[in-house]
Amino acid sequence: MLGSDLIIDFENCGQEMYRLMAELFPLCRSITGDGVRETLRTIQGQIPLRLVEVPTGTQVFDWTVPREWAIRDAHISDSNGKRIVDFRSNNLHVVGYSVPVDRTISLAELQNHLYSLETMPDAIPYVTSYYQERWGFCLTHRQRSGLPDGEYRVFIDSELKDGHLTYGELIIPGETDREIFLSTYVCHPSMANNELSGPVVATMLARWIMSRPRRFTYRIVFLPETIGSLTYLSRNLDRMKENIVAGFNLTCIGDDRAYSFLPSRSGSTLADRAALNILGHKHPDFIRYSFLDRGSDERQYCSPGVDLPVVSVMRSKYREYPEYHTSLDNLDLVTPAGLQGGFSAVRDCLELLENNRVYRATCLGEPQLGRRGLFPTVGTRDSHSQVADMLNVLAYADGTSDLIDISNIIKAPVYQLYPIIDELLSTGLIGCVSV
Amino acid sequence: MLGSDLIIDFENCGQEMYRLMAELFPLCRSITGDGVRETLRTIQGQIPLRLVEVPTGTQVFDWTVPREWAIRDAHISDSNGKRIVDFRSNNLHVVGYSVPVDRTISLAELQNHLYSLETMPDAIPYVTSYYQERWGFCLTHRQRSGLPDGEYRVFIDSELKDGHLTYGELIIPGETDREIFLSTYVCHPSMANNELSGPVVATMLARWIMSRPRRFTYRIVFLPETIGSLTYLSRNLDRMKENIVAGFNLTCIGDDRAYSFLPSRSGSTLADRAALNILGHKHPDFIRYSFLDRGSDERQYCSPGVDLPVVSVMRSKYREYPEYHTSLDNLDLVTPAGLQGGFSAVRDCLELLENNRVYRATCLGEPQLGRRGLFPTVGTRDSHSQVADMLNVLAYADGTSDLIDISNIIKAPVYQLYPIIDELLSTGLIGCVSV
Amino acid sequence: MLGSDLIIDFENCGQEMYRLMAELFPLCRSITGDGVRETLRTIQGQIPLRLVEVPTGTQVFDWTVPREWAIRDAHISDSNGKRIVDFRSNNLHVVGYSVPVDRTISLAELQNHLYSLETMPDAIPYVTSYYQERWGFCLTHRQRSGLPDGEYRVFIDSELKDGHLTYGELIIPGETDREIFLSTYVCHPSMANNELSGPVVATMLARWIMSRPRRFTYRIVFLPETIGSLTYLSRNLDRMKENIVAGFNLTCIGDDRAYSFLPSRSGSTLADRAALNILGHKHPDFIRYSFLDRGSDERQYCSPGVDLPVVSVMRSKYREYPEYHTSLDNLDLVTPAGLQGGFSAVRDCLELLENNRVYRATCLGEPQLGRRGLFPTVGTRDSHSQVADMLNVLAYADGTSDLIDISNIIKAPVYQLYPIIDELLSTGLIGCVSV
Repeated sequence: MLGSDLIIDFENCGQEMYRLMAELFPLCRSITGDGVRETLRTIQGQIPLRLVEVPTGTQVFDWTVPREWAIRDAHISDSNGKRIVDFRSNNLHVVGYSVPVDRTISLAELQNHLYSLETMPDAIPYVTSYYQERWGFCLTHRQRSGLPDGEYRVFIDSELKDGHLTYGELIIPGETDREIFLSTYVCHPSMANNELSGPVVATMLARWIMSRPRRFTYRIVFLPETIGSLTYLSRNLDRMKENIVAGFNLTCIGDDRAYSFLPSRSGSTLADRAALNILGHKHPDFIRYSFLDRGSDERQYCSPGVDLPVVSVMRSKYREYPEYHTSLDNLDLVTPAGLQGGFSAVRDCLELLENNRVYRATCLGEPQLGRRGLFPTVGTRDSHSQVADMLNVLAYADGTSDLIDISNIIKAPVYQLYPIIDELLSTGLIGCVSV
Repeated sequence: MLGSDLIIDFENCGQEMYRLMAELFPLCRSITGDGVRETLRTIQGQIPLRLVEVPTGTQVFDWTVPREWAIRDAHISDSNGKRIVDFRSNNLHVVGYSVPVDRTISLAELQNHLYSLETMPDAIPYVTSYYQERWGFCLTHRQRSGLPDGEYRVFIDSELKDGHLTYGELIIPGETDREIFLSTYVCHPSMANNELSGPVVATMLARWIMSRPRRFTYRIVFLPETIGSLTYLSRNLDRMKENIVAGFNLTCIGDDRAYSFLPSRSGSTLADRAALNILGHKHPDFIRYSFLDRGSDERQYCSPGVDLPVVSVMRSKYREYPEYHTSLDNLDLVTPAGLQGGFSAVRDCLELLENNRVYRATCLGEPQLGRRGLFPTVGTRDSHSQVADMLNVLAYADGTSDLIDISNIIKAPVYQLYPIIDELLSTGLIGCVSV
Repeated sequence: MLGSDLIIDFENCGQEMYRLMAELFPLCRSITGDGVRETLRTIQGQIPLRLVEVPTGTQVFDWTVPREWAIRDAHISDSNGKRIVDFRSNNLHVVGYSVPVDRTISLAELQNHLYSLETMPDAIPYVTSYYQERWGFCLTHRQRSGLPDGEYRVFIDSELKDGHLTYGELIIPGETDREIFLSTYVCHPSMANNELSGPVVATMLARWIMSRPRRFTYRIVFLPETIGSLTYLSRNLDRMKENIVAGFNLTCIGDDRAYSFLPSRSGSTLADRAALNILGHKHPDFIRYSFLDRGSDERQYCSPGVDLPVVSVMRSKYREYPEYHTSLDNLDLVTPAGLQGGFSAVRDCLELLENNRVYRATCLGEPQLGRRGLFPTVGTRDSHSQVADMLNVLAYADGTSDLIDISNIIKAPVYQLYPIIDELLSTGLIGCVSV
């Protein structure tokens, strides 16, 4: 199954991620139901995801796994029987978790069940009502404004019944039990940046991780936002707290307009340090948000008592771009280049974490680089600066600074230090202090 | 006696404070003597102050309680017997602690005993000589410049004799022995901002404190500056160091031109944190002084080995306004609105301290606000932000941050968080960690 | 021998340092050999330096003491036998540690052994090849460009043989075993700022130290850069790590264009704090370099595992001025005033260290300065500020802040506090906590 990985060029995998996104786009996902299952099964075509079903009614911390929602059809029809708002043409038209209805009502009554955006007249908004029974339709404000008086049939063929909450999990074992955690969500219907960019980047990252040796074990989850992360935490918290050294919440990582960073609650975890180092060197104009701007599953992962080191490396952040939570967050907004950029930024963070250790110089004083061929043997007025990076790494290989610290102190991109570290390790001039 | 408190509107008590100030203004206070006693007895008409008398000669740390000063009359008369400088018209005319004199001297000799301000020709300066025996008169520079040559009679009917240093103390018990400390001084003659604003605001704060339930015990003292605070400390230091969690030196708190803050020596005590939070949100243009700018009893309260957490929340700070220590610091300079503003700022600090605790969320992950009626049940693109404050409080209710920390982190005025804390406590979503 | 010290005016000793520099200038120093020995013997004329010889082949950490280099003569002659490049006229003309040669070669072949600076056509560059056997000549680019085609005789009468590395050491005992460390190097041929300024300032500092009482023991070393400091460390590391509280690397301390500071690796040692306080008050426009800009023996002294508190207080820093490592770094570049400024800056640091202790006020509350004659006895509106420095010292004499801390907090130059400290100690108002 994973044979195809052998030929992936991870520097140019944006098109492949985009193709998977286009395949997943039409599915009507919600926090439960077959839309989630189909999404996860499609992803199983690329990575060996394990699907887990948690029954309705299961207590997860302060919450309860809700009933499962099935939707088969929904429309508003005019007095001529013409479907003027049709779930089949865009699954955003129906309010998520709508209860069934089949009535004919006046426009005035209908208005109580309609949602549109006056400021974005051509966008269908995304609306849900998970925890209170309602029914409703979403449509463009332009269409809504033009609805003539009269009778309308509202029809929603849906079902709320005991069932399961479904999530996908992939554990990729490494040399140690220490884990890096990737989380993404699969609960929004047809939207691209704030939905599918996360799962497709997570899928490609899983393929990249599996393609190479690794120190860390990777825990990768695809789950419905909020209730899914709470459910996952409630079943795995002890192991996660014990093992996870850094985590990334993958969301809004597919357009090509910006890079964004949202810290963990403390702001100083290993994940924060890795992401800030990479973004600072690779995308120095990235937007740095505060934990006060949070809005995705870091709300659970970083909550008091959970306290996992989880950050978000994003492109245009949820709530900060105009198309957010509307039908305009579509396959035009997300691009192969945008996905590639998001993928590469997170991959660089993972690569940094794999390389990040505490080193210690093995001899007192500076070593004699010259006799090892590491230093020009004619001293001229410029030669001092030629091996500055190597000497700086040696100067801070003090048994307490890790590679991120060293990179920050000596102001050299951490990825420029990997070959230096390799050379110093292979000549025995430094040793690893941490495992 | 305290029945009148029942009808005070503490939002509009500036006039009442001003009336008390006007009543106290004419008294000739000094660091000892009947002026202090009369001042304290007048305040006893409003709050149950206990008067304490400490004998002359008592050793207080490096100091000794001085002899008591009594002054009955003082004047300079011209050769016609006309009183040209008269203690009865303004008690600032005589140098504080002047020894008696009754002589007729030349203008040249008189000049050695005169004090005036060339740069403020219409102001009588305030001058004292507590610890070296002297006599002298203060007058406007305009008057001094116009004195004709000739003989002048100088007459001071004063007395320096063994007696007492007098201070007033009020302990208002609370639920715990932990104390909040308020200190103000009653040793300057007829001046308003740098004298009476402190005692009248302290009196009103005592009435406010007594009018409501309280966690803390309040220790409120009215004493002569420096020698009084040293005396009080020398008799109460152990209990004060053990119990006081925050203290406020009340001085220069009655004009309406500015808000000012002077920190404790360390700058990071609970009193500093409370005052900076309140002033930062309520009066963001307040002037922030350094401990190097100190000049009142924090010099004793924050001295090494004493180390009490005492700050000053002021209006226009001593030494920083032109009328300071002159006859122009009078009943025109201080206003009812100025007193009300000063009172409210300190009251807000006390209210914050009463509310300031460390909280801990009681469930893992975010709680489900919706089923408790704390969250809108239709998820729209805006609903995330509607309960941001509550979610932020929950996110930082981590068992280590107190309410001031939370307010600072989430950038929300602490007083906007009181109802949220109440709601979260009453629904059991958070609990108190600290008592 | 030290009798002459009795008449030195250390405020005006620039000319005397300059004279010593002029005497040492012509010697052909290298990292080993008679040039170093003659330099050290000349300095022995002023201070009781002990010369130490370490044999060729001695292992010093990762390095080996090299063979000793002797050079008697060197020249390039044209086909007429005329010396066109002559070691006797400037010892920079020969590449340091050149092996012997006596051949006649073409201009083309000669070019492989020539070093010049195109951007500084009138400067002879300084080039060495300590650890790889080579021969070569340095000359001005102007001369090199004008060399006609033809045959040239290259002649170097040098020798590389087993011998010794030589360094000088002076231990000046003080009241305690705790040491202040001064290090300078004596390994460059005829250059002034980046060579002789260090030894001559170090010599004058030694004379100043010996001329007065002292708390600390002083360890002063004159050694070849890099291999010399490594050698010295390898023989003395344990005692140095145990005793040294602050150290100064003396280099580039003789021109009069700038003051410069290069911190220790941690940046927060006592040496850093002392130097930053002095430079900040005395030379507030000093240039503050980073440890990343290092290039002298702090590379060894501050290396991981060595970790000595060594900083550099300089005038124009090596590598930062145009004449660096060329024949233009000469007796015109360094001036008596430049040397005096460098000497005084380091001397001020040493004086600060001698005075720097932790003090504690002996009484609670402010002391009564008045009865000790330390405070004006008439209180006027200005008197508060008159003794501000003394009161501020008392306020921060808290048993944990040292004098540098106090100076930094109260923003008063530390040398203005020495008489205040003396007065407070002599009146018993403060005591010393640290030894």
